[in-house]
Amino acid sequence: MPFDPFIQETIRRALAEDVGNGDITSELIIDLSARSRAVFRAKESFVLAGMPFVQEVFHQVDPELTLTIKKKEGISVKRGDLLAEAAGRTRSLLMAERTALNILQRVSGIATLTRQFVEAVKGTGVRITDTRKTTPGFRSFEKYGVRIGGGWNHRFGLYDGVLIKDNHIAAAGGIAKAIDRTRRAHHLLNIEVEVSSLKEVEEALNARADVIMLDNMDITDIRRAVAFVGKRALLEVSGGVSLATVADLAATGVDIISSGALTHSARAVDISMKIVRKG
Amino acid sequence: MPFDPFIQETIRRALAEDVGNGDITSELIIDLSARSRAVFRAKESFVLAGMPFVQEVFHQVDPELTLTIKKKEGISVKRGDLLAEAAGRTRSLLMAERTALNILQRVSGIATLTRQFVEAVKGTGVRITDTRKTTPGFRSFEKYGVRIGGGWNHRFGLYDGVLIKDNHIAAAGGIAKAIDRTRRAHHLLNIEVEVSSLKEVEEALNARADVIMLDNMDITDIRRAVAFVGKRALLEVSGGVSLATVADLAATGVDIISSGALTHSARAVDISMKIVRKG
Amino acid sequence: MPFDPFIQETIRRALAEDVGNGDITSELIIDLSARSRAVFRAKESFVLAGMPFVQEVFHQVDPELTLTIKKKEGISVKRGDLLAEAAGRTRSLLMAERTALNILQRVSGIATLTRQFVEAVKGTGVRITDTRKTTPGFRSFEKYGVRIGGGWNHRFGLYDGVLIKDNHIAAAGGIAKAIDRTRRAHHLLNIEVEVSSLKEVEEALNARADVIMLDNMDITDIRRAVAFVGKRALLEVSGGVSLATVADLAATGVDIISSGALTHSARAVDISMKIVRKG
Amino acid sequence: MPFDPFIQETIRRALAEDVGNGDITSELIIDLSARSRAVFRAKESFVLAGMPFVQEVFHQVDPELTLTIKKKEGISVKRGDLLAEAAGRTRSLLMAERTALNILQRVSGIATLTRQFVEAVKGTGVRITDTRKTTPGFRSFEKYGVRIGGGWNHRFGLYDGVLIKDNHIAAAGGIAKAIDRTRRAHHLLNIEVEVSSLKEVEEALNARADVIMLDNMDITDIRRAVAFVGKRALLEVSGGVSLATVADLAATGVDIISSGALTHSARAVDISMKIVRKG
Amino acid sequence: MPFDPFIQETIRRALAEDVGNGDITSELIIDLSARSRAVFRAKESFVLAGMPFVQEVFHQVDPELTLTIKKKEGISVKRGDLLAEAAGRTRSLLMAERTALNILQRVSGIATLTRQFVEAVKGTGVRITDTRKTTPGFRSFEKYGVRIGGGWNHRFGLYDGVLIKDNHIAAAGGIAKAIDRTRRAHHLLNIEVEVSSLKEVEEALNARADVIMLDNMDITDIRRAVAFVGKRALLEVSGGVSLATVADLAATGVDIISSGALTHSARAVDISMKIVRKG
Amino acid sequence: MPFDPFIQETIRRALAEDVGNGDITSELIIDLSARSRAVFRAKESFVLAGMPFVQEVFHQVDPELTLTIKKKEGISVKRGDLLAEAAGRTRSLLMAERTALNILQRVSGIATLTRQFVEAVKGTGVRITDTRKTTPGFRSFEKYGVRIGGGWNHRFGLYDGVLIKDNHIAAAGGIAKAIDRTRRAHHLLNIEVEVSSLKEVEEALNARADVIMLDNMDITDIRRAVAFVGKRALLEVSGGVSLATVADLAATGVDIISSGALTHSARAVDISMKIVRKG
Repeated sequence: MPFDPFIQETIRRALAEDVGNGDITSELIIDLSARSRAVFRAKESFVLAGMPFVQEVFHQVDPELTLTIKKKEGISVKRGDLLAEAAGRTRSLLMAERTALNILQRVSGIATLTRQFVEAVKGTGVRITDTRKTTPGFRSFEKYGVRIGGGWNHRFGLYDGVLIKDNHIAAAGGIAKAIDRTRRAHHLLNIEVEVSSLKEVEEALNARADVIMLDNMDITDIRRAVAFVGKRALLEVSGGVSLATVADLAATGVDIISSGALTHSARAVDISMKIVRKG
Repeated sequence: MPFDPFIQETIRRALAEDVGNGDITSELIIDLSARSRAVFRAKESFVLAGMPFVQEVFHQVDPELTLTIKKKEGISVKRGDLLAEAAGRTRSLLMAERTALNILQRVSGIATLTRQFVEAVKGTGVRITDTRKTTPGFRSFEKYGVRIGGGWNHRFGLYDGVLIKDNHIAAAGGIAKAIDRTRRAHHLLNIEVEVSSLKEVEEALNARADVIMLDNMDITDIRRAVAFVGKRALLEVSGGVSLATVADLAATGVDIISSGALTHSARAVDISMKIVRKG
Repeated sequence: MPFDPFIQETIRRALAEDVGNGDITSELIIDLSARSRAVFRAKESFVLAGMPFVQEVFHQVDPELTLTIKKKEGISVKRGDLLAEAAGRTRSLLMAERTALNILQRVSGIATLTRQFVEAVKGTGVRITDTRKTTPGFRSFEKYGVRIGGGWNHRFGLYDGVLIKDNHIAAAGGIAKAIDRTRRAHHLLNIEVEVSSLKEVEEALNARADVIMLDNMDITDIRRAVAFVGKRALLEVSGGVSLATVADLAATGVDIISSGALTHSARAVDISMKIVRKG
Repeated sequence: MPFDPFIQETIRRALAEDVGNGDITSELIIDLSARSRAVFRAKESFVLAGMPFVQEVFHQVDPELTLTIKKKEGISVKRGDLLAEAAGRTRSLLMAERTALNILQRVSGIATLTRQFVEAVKGTGVRITDTRKTTPGFRSFEKYGVRIGGGWNHRFGLYDGVLIKDNHIAAAGGIAKAIDRTRRAHHLLNIEVEVSSLKEVEEALNARADVIMLDNMDITDIRRAVAFVGKRALLEVSGGVSLATVADLAATGVDIISSGALTHSARAVDISMKIVRKG
Repeated sequence: MPFDPFIQETIRRALAEDVGNGDITSELIIDLSARSRAVFRAKESFVLAGMPFVQEVFHQVDPELTLTIKKKEGISVKRGDLLAEAAGRTRSLLMAERTALNILQRVSGIATLTRQFVEAVKGTGVRITDTRKTTPGFRSFEKYGVRIGGGWNHRFGLYDGVLIKDNHIAAAGGIAKAIDRTRRAHHLLNIEVEVSSLKEVEEALNARADVIMLDNMDITDIRRAVAFVGKRALLEVSGGVSLATVADLAATGVDIISSGALTHSARAVDISMKIVRKG
Repeated sequence: MPFDPFIQETIRRALAEDVGNGDITSELIIDLSARSRAVFRAKESFVLAGMPFVQEVFHQVDPELTLTIKKKEGISVKRGDLLAEAAGRTRSLLMAERTALNILQRVSGIATLTRQFVEAVKGTGVRITDTRKTTPGFRSFEKYGVRIGGGWNHRFGLYDGVLIKDNHIAAAGGIAKAIDRTRRAHHLLNIEVEVSSLKEVEEALNARADVIMLDNMDITDIRRAVAFVGKRALLEVSGGVSLATVADLAATGVDIISSGALTHSARAVDISMKIVRKG
C-alpha cells in the first residue's frame, strides 16, 4: 500500500495499545524461531472490507510475515469462506492477531450495514452517505468501510467541506448572509446549508447553496422540497434514516441520504484467525 | 483530571482528525469574539459515561471553555435530561462538539449495554467482563465504559496478563508444560488457561492455573466444571454469551462471564449538544 | 488562540530546531531571574501578518511571558512603527526571538506580495489565489499570509479538492471520463480540470466541470475561453502570472488567478525585536 | 541515505501536510496498478541541490519507486537539462510530486543565490555564511542548500555555538565579563561577540574572543578593525550585505561575511516533473 | 526482532539525541562511499546482554549495515572475547557506535550484577527481582538485563500489578479494607501488600493477600513471617539487600528478594568497538 | 522553567513508561478528592541535583500540585535533611513519586561523584569533563548533574563539536589532512584531535588543532606533551581516569580531564519521599 500517514500511524498506535511492553504469554511459551500458518475465515455472512489494513498490521509487526488475500474487498462472503492465509513467526502472528481482527471485523461490519442501505435504495440513484459520527481516531477506517459497502463519504472533517448549520445562520443573521460569508472558502468547495422548513429551503436556494440538507423534515415536506428545488441544488436528507424508512425517503427524489448509524451503530462481524503450526 | 498520557494523546489525535487545518465554516461565519452557551441533553434513556473525557476535549480545544457537569457518571438518564452545560467562545464550542459527542455517545452506549448484562446476572456474584475486542486506538475509553456500567475489565493488552490459548498449549506440548513456562512471568500476574473440555479443565487445575476459561463449552459441561473445580481456581465463561443466555450461564456458578459484544457491538446512544448564543 | 493542532506542533518543532538542548550563551551569561521588555518594530513598509503565531511562540517558550500587540493583522505599517511589546524573563525573550521573527517576517512578506497582486486587479472581482507551492511543513502559515494580504486560498492539499491534470486525463482516457470518475468524491467538493486549449475547455464544460483551469494559455485564448464559457463554470488562470501581467489577465474576465510566486518567492520583510532591560 | 532523524521526520510531516487523508483525485481516476515514468527537468538555469531529499520523499511515499539521479549536487544546470528519472506506481509518483518539487526548488534556489555571493568574493578567501534566519522547521534543508552553493554554515541553533550579543553584554556588565562567563561552555565551542564600534572590537580582542562580528559597521571602520585585529581573532561582517556590496566588503580582509538573505529571501527556481505513462 | 514499539522508539530517540543534525566530523572527513568492518570486544569479564538492541540500532542508522553476533545473550565473556562483527558504510558505523555501546555496556552491567545476586542464592529457589527504580525512559532495557542475568522482573509499572503500600493502607483505613477494594482489579492480577511488622503480616494473610512484601524487617522477623505464613502467600523481602546479605536473606525461606540496586546502581561494563577499514 | 523541549518530552515519556494506562492500585483505593503532603528527605550524604526536573514531573502529572524546594541545587546535604515539600491530590503525588525519585537519585548521584573528582583536582585549574557515555535518552539530565557537581560538559553529541579519532585520521590519510577537511565546520566550533603518542601530538599541533586529546597515554608522556605544547593548544586527558589517579593526572598541567565514569558508573543516592495525609 503506498504512503498513507494517518493509517500507518493509527495502526502503530493500535499495536502499541495492545502489545505494550510485549506479549508476555507468547514470549514465555513460544520459541522465537517457531513458525506457523494462520487462516482467516468468515464465521457468518457479510461484506468483506479491510484486508489492506490487515496487511499493514502484519507488515508493521514483522516485515517477514506473508499474507495472501483470498477474497476481494467488497465481496459478500458466507460462513466458512477462506478470507486470507498468513505465514511466518508464530509469535508475530499472535501479536498481530487481535489488532488485525479488531480492524477487519469493524470495517466489514460497516461495509455490511452500508450495503444493506445501498440495496434498499437500488435503482433510485440516491447516494447513501456517512457523517462525522465516527469513532474518535478511527474515522479513516470507518469511512473506507462505507465506500467498500457502496456508500459515499460526506466530508472527512471540519476542514474539507462547508456545512452551514443553525448556529452559523443565527450568528450571521440569516441564511443568505451566512452563505455569502462562506464564498471566501476555496473555490473547490461547495457550500451546504442545513434547513428544517420549506421556507428555509427557498432562502437557501435563493442564496445559491450548492447542497441543501433537509434536517428531520417529514416525508411530505421532503417531496415538496424536491419539487420546489427542481435540481437547482443537491438535496440531502438527514435524520430519521433507518433500513425501514430509507426506501421511502429515496423515493422522494432527493439526491443524498446521510446516516450516522452506518458508522456509529454497526455491529462487528464474526471472523476467526486460526493458527496452524508448521508440520 | 490528573495525568493520563494515553487519554490525552488519543483526544489530541481525535481533534486533529476532525479539525485538520481548521473549521472552515465557523472561521468564515462566526466572529472570533462571539460567545455562547451549550447544553448537552439525553435524547433517549441510557447510562451516562464519559463526561471526564468531554472535559478534556473542551480543555484541549480552548482552556477558557467552562463545562459544568449536571449528572454523575453511571447514572441512568432519560430523554430530555440535562447532562451538562458549557460556555465560552462559540467557535471553540463548535470545534469541540463532534469529538465530544462521538466519545460520549459511544462510551455511554457501552456502559448502557454493560449495565443490561450486569442486571441480568444480579445476585449471582458473577463478574461481567470485557475482552480485547475493542476499537483500535480507543480501548481505554471503551474499557472505562464497561467499568462505569458495572462490569469488570479483563486484561488491557498482551502485556498485563498471562492468557494461555490453544496455540500456546500446542507449542509447549501440553497444558502443564505451558503453565510451567509462564511461572517466569512476574509474580503479580495470575495465569489463565483457555480450555474446551472437562479433561482440559482437570489438566489446568492440576497444573495450578489461577483462572480457567471455559471456551464455548455447553451449559452442562460448564456445570460439571464448576462442581469439579470447587473454587480451587476462578472459572471464566467465554463464547455464546448474550443477554438471552447470560442469566443461565451465571446460574451455573462460574465466577466470570466475558463478552466481546460489550465493546464491539454496542450501539451509540443519542445525545444532543445545542448551542445557545449569549443574549 | 483556540486549538489548532498543526500550528501548535509546527511551532513546537521550530523551537526545538532552534533551541535544541538549550540557549547556551544566555544560560551562561544571563540570570534566570532577570526580566526585560522587548519591542517589535517595522524596519520597512509592509503588510503585517503573523502576530497570533508570535503569541503562540511566546506562550510555548514561557507561559509567563506577556505580549501586547499594537497593530492589527493586515494593516500596512511603515518603517519605525511599533508592532508589539513583550515582557518577562530575559532568557525566555531571547529564546523566543529568532523563531518569532522568522515566522513574522515570512508571513508578512507573503501578505505584502499578495496585497500587491490584489491591488493590481482591484475592481475586477478577480480572486488572487495561492497554490500548493509552499515551504514543506510551513504551508498553514503561508496560506494564512495570503489570506491576510487579501488573497484567497486554493485547496490545502491533495485531500480537500479535486483537481484533474493531464496525467489524470490520460489515465482515464479523456476529460469526460476523468470527470465522470471523480463524481465519486464527496458532494461538498467541486471538480476542477486543468486544460491547455479551447478544445479542452469545451470538453471540460460539456463534462460539467465546476472549475476550469487555463494552464499557460495566451491572453487571446483566455479571452475566447471566457466568452465561450459564459459563467457556466469558474475559470482560473495559471502560469505566466506576475505583477506585470496580472492586470491584463484579470481584464479578460476570468474568475481566479493563481500564482505559486505568492508563497514560493516572497521575500521576508525586515522587522526588529529589541530587548530593553528593566530599570 | 544513512540515518538523519530530523530530515526524515520533516519529510514525513511535509507529506502528511500535503497528502492528508489521501490524494482524492488520483484515487478516483487512476488504477492502483498503473505504472509510469517521471522526468525532472530544469526550466531555467540554476545550481542543483536537494536530490537526496527527493530520494527520501520517493522512498517514504512508496519504497518500490525508483529514482535515478542524472546530475550531481552543486552542478550548474540550464533550461531543459534532465535532472532525474523516476518510475513506479503512477499514484505514488503523483503523491510525491509536489513535496519533492517544493523541496528541490527551494533548496536549489538557495544554492543558486549562495553561489552568486561566493562567485562575487572569489579569490578573497572570505567565507560566505548563512544565519539562523531560516524557515521554521526547514532549517536543515536550507543550510544544506547553502553548503552545496559553496557557502558555509554558521551555528545551527542556540545550542551549538556561543554568540554574545548586546543584550548579553548589557546583562553581564561589559564585553569582558560576558566572555568570561561563557568560558563555562564546552571547550569545543569558540566564542563570538557581536560589536558595533572599534572600541568594542578592542574590548572583545582583549577579552580573547575567538570571533568578532562587526554588526552594521561602515566599510572604513571594517578596514580599521581588520588592521587592528591582525588575525588575532576571526572577523565576521554582518548587516548591509548584498550582491552589490559583498565584493567590497570581502576586499576589506575580513574572514567571514554572513547574510540572512541567503535563506530568507532566495527565490524558488523552476523545475518540472513530467509523468509519462508506460507504453 | 518482531515488533516492539517502546524499544524501537527509545532507540530512535537515543540516536536523535546523539546524532542531532549530523555527525559533523565524519561528514567532513569520511567519504559517503567508504566502507569498513567493526569488531566488538569485551575489555573485562561480564555477562553479555543487549545484542538484539545493538542490531536494532544498526538497522535504524542504516538498513544496509550487517551485524554478526558471535556470543549468545547471557554468556559469561572474558577480556578479549570477540562479541560481534559489523560491516557497511564507515559513516554509518561511526554514527551507530556510541549509542550501541551505551546500551550494551549498561545492559550487560545489569545482567552481570544480577548474575552475582542469583549465584549468591543458588539452590535456595529464591527469585532475585528488580524494582521500578530504573533510569527514566530506559526501563525495558534494564529489566531485560535483569532477565538475562537470571533474575525475575517485578511489575513493569503502576499499570500491571497491584502493590498496596502504607499510604494506600492509611487511605483505606486498614490492610483488609485496602485489599478488599483492589479486588476490583482485573482477575489476572495478584495483590501484593507491603508490611513492616508480623502483626501486619497476619492482617495481610487474613485478608488473602497473594504476595506479602516484608519491608526493611530484620532477619529474625523475616524467619518468623516465613514460619507463620507457611506458603499460604508468597513472601517478598525488600530493603537492606546487598551481595553481603542476600544469601542470609534467602536462607530464611522467603520466595522473592527484590533489589533496586540491580538497576539503579549497576556499573557499565567495558566493551570496545574497533573499526577496521576495508583493505 | 522556560521551554526545554527535550527535557519535557523525556519526562512525558518517563511518566508514560511508569504510569501506562493508570496507577491501578491508587485508583482502586484512594479517592480522587483525597489530598496529602509529601516530604523529600536525604537518606545519606550527597550533592543535591535535579529538583527542577522534579518540578516538571509534578507539573505534568497534575498542574495543581505544589512543590516547595528547600535546598539549592549543588548543596551538599546530609542524612535526614529536608529537601522539598509537596502538596496536592494524593493520587497525583503517588503517580509522580517514582519518576521524580528515579530522576533525582540518579542526577544527584552523578553530581556527587563529579564533586569528588572536582575536589580531587582543586587548585590545579583542571576541568573535569564528562563524555558521551550516557544512558540513551537521558543525556541532558546526566550532563546537568555533571555541571551541578562542578564539572564541565564535553560536546553534547556528534553535532556540536568536531572530534577527530583514529578512524577519521586513517580515512583522511593523516592528522593534518583530517584537520584540514574539518575547517569546513562552522567557525564557532573548535577542532579536537585524539592522539596516542608524542609524535602525533606534534602533528596535531602543526596542523593547528585547537584541542588535543591524549588517549590512554602514560603520565610521563602526558608531562612531555604538556611541555611540548606549551599552551599552544588545549590538552585533554582521557582513559585510565579514576579518583585514585585524577590528582596526579591534573598535576601534569593538562587543561581537561574527561571521564565516562561520571555518567556511566555513578551510583544512585538514597532519597525518600514520604506522603503524609492531611489531618
